[in-house]
Amino acid sequence: MTASFGRRLRAALDAYGPLCVGIDPHAQLLDDWGLGQDAAGVRDFGLRVVDASAGRVAAVKPQVSFFERFGAAGFAALESVLAAARAAGLLVVADAKRGDIGTTMAGYAQAWLEPGAPLEADALTVSPYLGGGSLAEAIRHALPHGKGVFVLAATSNPEGASVQQAHTTRPGETVALRVTRDVVALDDSTDPLGSVGLVVGATIDRAAFALDDEVLRAVPLLAPGFGAQGATAEDLRRGFGTLAGNVLASESRSILSAGPDRIAATIDERAARYQEVMGG
Amino acid sequence: MTASFGRRLRAALDAYGPLCVGIDPHAQLLDDWGLGQDAAGVRDFGLRVVDASAGRVAAVKPQVSFFERFGAAGFAALESVLAAARAAGLLVVADAKRGDIGTTMAGYAQAWLEPGAPLEADALTVSPYLGGGSLAEAIRHALPHGKGVFVLAATSNPEGASVQQAHTTRPGETVALRVTRDVVALDDSTDPLGSVGLVVGATIDRAAFALDDEVLRAVPLLAPGFGAQGATAEDLRRGFGTLAGNVLASESRSILSAGPDRIAATIDERAARYQEVMGG
Repeated sequence: MTASFGRRLRAALDAYGPLCVGIDPHAQLLDDWGLGQDAAGVRDFGLRVVDASAGRVAAVKPQVSFFERFGAAGFAALESVLAAARAAGLLVVADAKRGDIGTTMAGYAQAWLEPGAPLEADALTVSPYLGGGSLAEAIRHALPHGKGVFVLAATSNPEGASVQQAHTTRPGETVALRVTRDVVALDDSTDPLGSVGLVVGATIDRAAFALDDEVLRAVPLLAPGFGAQGATAEDLRRGFGTLAGNVLASESRSILSAGPDRIAATIDERAARYQEVMGG
Repeated sequence: MTASFGRRLRAALDAYGPLCVGIDPHAQLLDDWGLGQDAAGVRDFGLRVVDASAGRVAAVKPQVSFFERFGAAGFAALESVLAAARAAGLLVVADAKRGDIGTTMAGYAQAWLEPGAPLEADALTVSPYLGGGSLAEAIRHALPHGKGVFVLAATSNPEGASVQQAHTTRPGETVALRVTRDVVALDDSTDPLGSVGLVVGATIDRAAFALDDEVLRAVPLLAPGFGAQGATAEDLRRGFGTLAGNVLASESRSILSAGPDRIAATIDERAARYQEVMGG
C-alpha cells in the first residue's frame, strides 16, 4: 500500500525541518549563474539546485512558469529536474497553480500526480477560482496514489485580499475560509497530517482571512514568502504558532542568489536556522 | 504596427460569426476517433480539428490540460497544433487558466503570448484567485504584441458561485465584478473591442455576479457552455443581449463527437445556426 502524501510529508518535516527550496530559474538568475536563457539553462539550473538540496531539506518546489516559457523543450528540462529530485529522495511540489473543472481538472492530476507520468511530482499547487469543489476530480485522483495538493487559500500579495477576503453568504465566512472548508472535506484520511494542503502566505494576518487554528489543525501548509520576500525563520513560530510544525517554509531567491558555488552551504545555514527556531 | 488582439478578434467575429471550436482531446474522444492515448493521438486529433475549422470559424480553443497529461511530448504535440491553427488564419485561444504574480505571471505570458515562442497563441485564459491586479504583468506583456487574455470572471459550474459571487467590502461589488474592474482597467486602448477579455458562462444569471451590460461594454467575452453543455445559439442573444456581438461562443463535445469524417460538416451547420441567430 502506498503511503499517503501527508504521511510522507510528516516524515520529511520531522527529518529535515520546514525548509523547502524553490527552483525558480528566472532570467536574472540564469545570467548570474552563467547559464543560457534556454531549456538547457533551466535544466542545468534545476539539476544543480536538486544536487545542493538532496539530503539537506524536506522538499523542493520548482516554479513551472520559468520552464514553461521554453515550451516543450522547457517541459523536457523540467521532467529531468523532477526525476532527479524524486530519485534523490526529495519531496517535489510542482508549483503550477493549475485550476479547472471536471475531466479537465482530472487531466492536470494525470499530468502531475499519476505514478509514471513524465511530469510526476509528489504534490501540485492548484487554484480555486472556480470554487474549492471544482478541484474534487484532481484530489480524488491524487490521494489514492499517495499524492497531495496545495490549494491557494490566503496569499500575501496585496491584490489577493480583493478576492480571498471577500465574504460569502455564510456569516463570518471569507472566500479563503470557504475554499479551505470545501477542499479539506475532500480528504477523508485520518492521518495526523492530511494530504490536501493549503498555500498560506508567511506574513499574512490570518484573522483577516478568518483562518483560525482550528480549521487548519491537520492541514499541511505551504508558506511562500520566506527569505528575500521578507519573512524570517522566527516568523514561522510567530505567524503559525502551534501549526508551525505543519508548515513547509519556501525560500527561493535568498538561497538561489548565493550562486552555484555557495548554494549548498547557504541551504545548510538556512536549514539549521529553521531547525533552531523549531527546536526552541 | 501590430494590430491589437481586440481588433483582430472584431474582424474575425465579423467575418465568421461567434463560433469557437474547442480542441479537447479527452480519453473517450481519442478512443471514438480511433486515435492513441498518447502525444501522437492528441496531435493528430488537434490537427484534424484545425483542418476542419480553417475558413469556417473565427477561433479555436485548445484545452491545454489534455495535452499536458502527456508531459513534454504532449506540449510538442500542442506546439504543432497551435502553429497549424495560426498558419490557417484561425485565432487561437490557449485555454490554460494560468495564474500567478509578478515575474512568475510574466513567465506565463512569455510562454504563450510572445511572438516566436514555441507555444505562441493569440490569447490565453488566466485565473484571478490572486486578485485581478496580480495579472498585470501578463497583460502588460501581452498587449503591445497584439495578444490578449480572457480572465476567468463568472462561470457556470455550480461550485464557482462560492468564490465569484462573494462580496468585497465595496457596496454591491462581487468578486466577479471586482476582478472585471481590476483587469479591464489594465487595458488602456480605445479600440471598439478591447484586448482584455473575460470568461463568462453561457447560461449564468449575470445579475447574481453583478455584471451588468455597462461594465462589459467593450470587453471581449469567451463563453463556454454552448452545445453539449446545454446552451443554444438562441441563448447567445437571450443571455448577452446587446453584448452578443462581442462573444466567442465555445463548443467542444457537440462538434467533436461528430467524429473525424463528420466534423467539418457539423462545424458548417453550427456556424450557420449562430450566424442566423446573430443576423436575425
